[in-house]
Amino acid sequence: MVLHRKSKEIGLSPGSLVYLGDKKEKPVQITVINYGVEHYNQETAATVEDCFQYTTADPITWINIVGINDVKVIGRLGGAYKIHPLVLEDIVNTGHRPKVDYYDDYLFIVLKMLYSATSNQAIQHEQISLIVGKRYVISFQEVALDVFEPVRERIKKGRGRIREQGSDYLAYALMDTVVDRYFNVLEGVGETIDALEDAVIHEPAPETLEVIQDLKHEMLFIRKSIWPFREVVSTLIRRESQLISEDVILFLRDVYDHTIHIIDTVETNRDMLAGMLDIYLSSVNNKMNEVMKVLTIIATIFIPLSFVTGIYGMNFEFMPELKWKIAYPLIWLLMLVVFIGMVIFFRRRKWL
Amino acid sequence: MVLHRKSKEIGLSPGSLVYLGDKKEKPVQITVINYGVEHYNQETAATVEDCFQYTTADPITWINIVGINDVKVIGRLGGAYKIHPLVLEDIVNTGHRPKVDYYDDYLFIVLKMLYSATSNQAIQHEQISLIVGKRYVISFQEVALDVFEPVRERIKKGRGRIREQGSDYLAYALMDTVVDRYFNVLEGVGETIDALEDAVIHEPAPETLEVIQDLKHEMLFIRKSIWPFREVVSTLIRRESQLISEDVILFLRDVYDHTIHIIDTVETNRDMLAGMLDIYLSSVNNKMNEVMKVLTIIATIFIPLSFVTGIYGMNFEFMPELKWKIAYPLIWLLMLVVFIGMVIFFRRRKWL
Amino acid sequence: MVLHRKSKEIGLSPGSLVYLGDKKEKPVQITVINYGVEHYNQETAATVEDCFQYTTADPITWINIVGINDVKVIGRLGGAYKIHPLVLEDIVNTGHRPKVDYYDDYLFIVLKMLYSATSNQAIQHEQISLIVGKRYVISFQEVALDVFEPVRERIKKGRGRIREQGSDYLAYALMDTVVDRYFNVLEGVGETIDALEDAVIHEPAPETLEVIQDLKHEMLFIRKSIWPFREVVSTLIRRESQLISEDVILFLRDVYDHTIHIIDTVETNRDMLAGMLDIYLSSVNNKMNEVMKVLTIIATIFIPLSFVTGIYGMNFEFMPELKWKIAYPLIWLLMLVVFIGMVIFFRRRKWL
Amino acid sequence: MVLHRKSKEIGLSPGSLVYLGDKKEKPVQITVINYGVEHYNQETAATVEDCFQYTTADPITWINIVGINDVKVIGRLGGAYKIHPLVLEDIVNTGHRPKVDYYDDYLFIVLKMLYSATSNQAIQHEQISLIVGKRYVISFQEVALDVFEPVRERIKKGRGRIREQGSDYLAYALMDTVVDRYFNVLEGVGETIDALEDAVIHEPAPETLEVIQDLKHEMLFIRKSIWPFREVVSTLIRRESQLISEDVILFLRDVYDHTIHIIDTVETNRDMLAGMLDIYLSSVNNKMNEVMKVLTIIATIFIPLSFVTGIYGMNFEFMPELKWKIAYPLIWLLMLVVFIGMVIFFRRRKWL
Amino acid sequence: MVLHRKSKEIGLSPGSLVYLGDKKEKPVQITVINYGVEHYNQETAATVEDCFQYTTADPITWINIVGINDVKVIGRLGGAYKIHPLVLEDIVNTGHRPKVDYYDDYLFIVLKMLYSATSNQAIQHEQISLIVGKRYVISFQEVALDVFEPVRERIKKGRGRIREQGSDYLAYALMDTVVDRYFNVLEGVGETIDALEDAVIHEPAPETLEVIQDLKHEMLFIRKSIWPFREVVSTLIRRESQLISEDVILFLRDVYDHTIHIIDTVETNRDMLAGMLDIYLSSVNNKMNEVMKVLTIIATIFIPLSFVTGIYGMNFEFMPELKWKIAYPLIWLLMLVVFIGMVIFFRRRKWL
Repeated sequence: MVLHRKSKEIGLSPGSLVYLGDKKEKPVQITVINYGVEHYNQETAATVEDCFQYTTADPITWINIVGINDVKVIGRLGGAYKIHPLVLEDIVNTGHRPKVDYYDDYLFIVLKMLYSATSNQAIQHEQISLIVGKRYVISFQEVALDVFEPVRERIKKGRGRIREQGSDYLAYALMDTVVDRYFNVLEGVGETIDALEDAVIHEPAPETLEVIQDLKHEMLFIRKSIWPFREVVSTLIRRESQLISEDVILFLRDVYDHTIHIIDTVETNRDMLAGMLDIYLSSVNNKMNEVMKVLTIIATIFIPLSFVTGIYGMNFEFMPELKWKIAYPLIWLLMLVVFIGMVIFFRRRKWL
Repeated sequence: MVLHRKSKEIGLSPGSLVYLGDKKEKPVQITVINYGVEHYNQETAATVEDCFQYTTADPITWINIVGINDVKVIGRLGGAYKIHPLVLEDIVNTGHRPKVDYYDDYLFIVLKMLYSATSNQAIQHEQISLIVGKRYVISFQEVALDVFEPVRERIKKGRGRIREQGSDYLAYALMDTVVDRYFNVLEGVGETIDALEDAVIHEPAPETLEVIQDLKHEMLFIRKSIWPFREVVSTLIRRESQLISEDVILFLRDVYDHTIHIIDTVETNRDMLAGMLDIYLSSVNNKMNEVMKVLTIIATIFIPLSFVTGIYGMNFEFMPELKWKIAYPLIWLLMLVVFIGMVIFFRRRKWL
Repeated sequence: MVLHRKSKEIGLSPGSLVYLGDKKEKPVQITVINYGVEHYNQETAATVEDCFQYTTADPITWINIVGINDVKVIGRLGGAYKIHPLVLEDIVNTGHRPKVDYYDDYLFIVLKMLYSATSNQAIQHEQISLIVGKRYVISFQEVALDVFEPVRERIKKGRGRIREQGSDYLAYALMDTVVDRYFNVLEGVGETIDALEDAVIHEPAPETLEVIQDLKHEMLFIRKSIWPFREVVSTLIRRESQLISEDVILFLRDVYDHTIHIIDTVETNRDMLAGMLDIYLSSVNNKMNEVMKVLTIIATIFIPLSFVTGIYGMNFEFMPELKWKIAYPLIWLLMLVVFIGMVIFFRRRKWL
Repeated sequence: MVLHRKSKEIGLSPGSLVYLGDKKEKPVQITVINYGVEHYNQETAATVEDCFQYTTADPITWINIVGINDVKVIGRLGGAYKIHPLVLEDIVNTGHRPKVDYYDDYLFIVLKMLYSATSNQAIQHEQISLIVGKRYVISFQEVALDVFEPVRERIKKGRGRIREQGSDYLAYALMDTVVDRYFNVLEGVGETIDALEDAVIHEPAPETLEVIQDLKHEMLFIRKSIWPFREVVSTLIRRESQLISEDVILFLRDVYDHTIHIIDTVETNRDMLAGMLDIYLSSVNNKMNEVMKVLTIIATIFIPLSFVTGIYGMNFEFMPELKWKIAYPLIWLLMLVVFIGMVIFFRRRKWL
Repeated sequence: MVLHRKSKEIGLSPGSLVYLGDKKEKPVQITVINYGVEHYNQETAATVEDCFQYTTADPITWINIVGINDVKVIGRLGGAYKIHPLVLEDIVNTGHRPKVDYYDDYLFIVLKMLYSATSNQAIQHEQISLIVGKRYVISFQEVALDVFEPVRERIKKGRGRIREQGSDYLAYALMDTVVDRYFNVLEGVGETIDALEDAVIHEPAPETLEVIQDLKHEMLFIRKSIWPFREVVSTLIRRESQLISEDVILFLRDVYDHTIHIIDTVETNRDMLAGMLDIYLSSVNNKMNEVMKVLTIIATIFIPLSFVTGIYGMNFEFMPELKWKIAYPLIWLLMLVVFIGMVIFFRRRKWL
């Protein structure tokens, strides 16, 4: 999962479109939203050709494409919008790290979206690609999750300033939504970690180890997604481009702060998880200590006593004590003294 | 706690004011101090509108607002002082890292204040926001702690140079007070660590582990607050702005030295705490070693002796030794020899 | 293996050609491919002199030399193509890290190729050297592996844009193929690691340790190869040279992304392997805990019971209980009570 | 100790002189040395006013002040030599890291001096402050240690080039002396570490742990002093100032090399100490292993033998073996065989 | 050893020549080689004055001085060749890190030479100082090892280009020889590590720990030598000087590659050694696990069986079973069943 199965294509020439992911959406869903301050129109495109009219269209067009396994669709769209073949290849090749590439007429942004299925804790991810032109944004998703629904709502209802702004603001809004999902996922992880901390001290079990290990993998994965994400935002802020306005840069700075916040949280989690393994080991050793103490106490008390009984179980003919009437009670007394002595010894050592 | 619950607002458009913290102060307390070299006036504003007159007022005005949960108050104040909506959002959004943003007419500074409740050791924190204009400083606190009381006293009594200086010096004084709280908190932590070091070597217990783990979290938290704090001060020193005078930069350098000192202390504490876990593990193993030695000594001495008694406890009819008169004392002698031999063996190995 | 046996040549003057590797190919195989948009010609050169005609030849010539142990061949080729003696020395000296050197008429690129023999997991490597001139590429391999076969196929069949491009594109294609082998090898490693993770928690064995240690070495080795590889690509992208066209730089950027991806994967693997050792230790301790519990339970139950039987095995003449008819059943009852008490005790402690 | 008790002064305005250290010298000792190539005069100043004449005096004046708890003395001296109030505050505030501040007429240098009391190993430190003017150096020490005596001797006897050089050379000589003390202290630490290495492998004891932990703290402390010290020297070398001549920069480079050397040694020591904890743990486990082996060997040999004697200690009426004459010797033979078998088993496992 | 005993000279003024090492060569050996393309002359100088004639001599003169404990010799030579006193001090002060200093007429280079005595593994080192003038190289060694013999041979026999090149090429050749010794030493270390890896998994012993620890120290030491060595070479390559020709820079780049290679190897070794300690710990725990299993199996089988025999060893008058004829065989059967049950139990747990 972590490693993109690049090996399938050894020998392929670059620029050939082959979808390498394992999430097949059939058929590809294309949604087109065309909007301006006073204007809003949303429709589902039956074929990719329906989107071509927007290349020179009204204020802002947002084309959202769900399912990138049908590479022909991507190819034809790329032709209409004059997208570089390497960009199209990157869109369908889901093994990329987040990055931003500058082209003359558009920016190409690759992001990683996180989501956690509700039933268990495994974190899923999909690649989100954005092509940000002067008047349009084309977004590509691997699966049909309604992650962009809030943005669609805001455009539809004209809430906030989104209807008054350009395609760069729309791109910002989409990136902001992606970042919010990271917070969402990390919150769940945080709760799991809190629960683990208790478990690891009081009830260490091999299963706890497995959960810790899984979380460490997930933190590694999020880390690998968010660091280059931060780089993307940082590049967008620093590098001048007529596609990103001064206004939107202020908002991107906010996204940048969020990515730093996420990195902080991930690093903190990693630190905590690393510490937990040590604590787990300490707890296991503590438990073993308890076990050993019980064994030692019992054995140390009863082995000498058994020795005493062994002596008077011997069958020598000439053992004068065996004839004494007082011997049996005396032996009981002796054993009592030994027993009490042992208990005092253990109390002194704080084992009892 | 560590992670700001950003997820509540997925889909919110930026600029909407929603307080995300959990510290509600009712009602909002507004204190206005207006002062100059010869002049001092302090009053409690009943409504936020009472503060609007100071935008163009006498030498220096300090508006301190406690309680940021009433977002309408913040909004109206922001309008009067022409504060950017994103700044207002950052003030009520308490999940921010310390930062400084430069605007044309004012600086916006976010800091984290630490305080430790007296009864237990959990470190609390609140967000302090400062808006530093040419002639005014507006400070925002989440809860009503008298952290700024010493500064208020200095202004009132005209001690030091505070009455002769501008709003930048006031901002410096407030930041210096915040830094002092870090020293205060770290001092308490240092004492706890000193006590822990002894405990971990001589009386390792699972509770010690929990305290170590808690302190590690706190160090992680302070670290996450103080590093960006240092960045804030460093930016104020390096970046030119007509809002910060040359004079005040000298004082800010002092604050910068303090933040480095705090970072040093936090890193030292982290190092010590990390080492403590190893020592804890060693101590637990040492204890187990002690337990095992006791068991081994007792078992190793008495198991062979019991074997001897077992032999002469057998009921064979033809065991000539059983008839000997000398046998019983001889057996005692044999066992004594074995016992002394064992003791010598253990002494040689330094187990006794 | 990891350390190049430089010591054999202490005292040698630089520029003397001595092959230091251990892979002898006899005889050296020389393949020459001469191609243009419309033109394709492949032949096997009998002697190195057959290659000399291509120094001023048609569009693009690719000379592939397998086996660098025959240093005279390298020397004569170097003479014909006016290659610097230090470059020739670097070609036969297989202990080099990946690097790129700029000369007036050509670039000299050293890479490390990875391959894993199918039967076991040991990762092999060989040094690939490329000399990239205006119209020719000379590639040197240590052993006859068909790693460049896909590129040869693409040229032959005229697939992709390779026939239309210059020698720089050919160099890119070869480097891309090398990078692909890294993915290939890492994929195998990834599967091994997944399998190990289970083994380490549920069946820790000394052999597991050895596999982990071997993988750690391999990751260290790949790391040492891929970091300077990345540097090579980065230098090719950044540094201006009339030998690398703008077009090809776009493709090199893709290779650069791949190397970063590989570095990410290697670092993740290293992190996981480091964590596995801790888990291994925890698992071993857990196992020991289990063993100790069984011992403790059995010993703690039966040692006191044996003590009881020992008492009534004593041969004192005056032990009134021995005469009681009820004594024997009573003793059974007592032992049953002790047994049940112990079981309850262990259940409470969750040892049973 | 590590943390400067800054909390005592929360609310103090900057510039107020309060001594925060715990080393009170009464009364303050002031030594004035005035010297040139041909000229040397040393006297002890009764009051601070006696030093004021030297502000415009002959070639070079060195004023050494021991004891900084009398803040009034510092204040008056500062007035005469026109020292900035923040500098005076830094002199008495002993919690500072080493640093250098540039003022128009003088440099202000803060250093940490180390010394180890002879009887035990605790490393002490005091703050050394230097004010380096064109014709004078004022040095401040917390306690009366003769650390600067060698420099005084060199001036007095006119050894080396010190009498021919300016105040910058004097400052260099003082800094060099401070650095030498670090070597002195580290040498002692090195010997302790060598001794510890043996102890930790052959005789691990909880006391060893405490010594290791103490040394780690000391290394942390030295590290915190020497890194900024290096920065100070580096700044003096790089930054142009008419107070430091080209000649003296050559000598400062030597001091710089020394600080790097010290940093190297400290890092090496830290590495060794960190490794020692692991070795300690291994040694403790090794010891436990030895203990367990003894227990296992004894128990494994004698428990089965005791079982055999137990069988023939049973009182069944119909046990035919009990009647056999050969039985008793046979049983001895059997036990001997079992014993020898066990010994062979343990020898094979290399436990004996 | 690691720490240069600087403390002996606290209070010494800089520039005084005192040899601080512990390798005394008596008397100092001075070899002078004067050579050009056609010319070669080697002689042993009886006194240092014999070398003075070469300051303005024929093409290239190489003066090799073995033994630096006779500081007067160094002093006089320094006078004749106009060497700065600080340089002379650095030559006899053997505690220096590798470095290069630029003076007007010469370069001063300090290196660390490694060599391993054949009988055991301790790595020795000596300081090599080079003074590289326009027409001469003066090299200083502490002890008479024939490390420069190969260079001498090459000059004598006129092999390679050494006779045609200047003093800079000679300096390069000497540095290259020093680097080669590092490879030599590391090769030996590599073989030791390979052997250790096996030992640590299969036969962990406290002696293994000591070897690991020794190797870690040696790696730390080599690291401290090679990093600044790399800096030296890097400075020589980057910084312009009329003493180093363009040609020689190409060769120095080769040395630079070698130093990076050595650093890589050292870091890899450090990584492996660090991992080995963990593996050692795991192996020790594994061994203990084996020991515990044997104990547990034996004890768990025989303690219950002994309990059974204990029961029928009791002397109660009314134990009906004792009278039964079938009892004794039955008890054997019971014990057999218990024994087989235990074996099955242990097999299930994979302990047998």
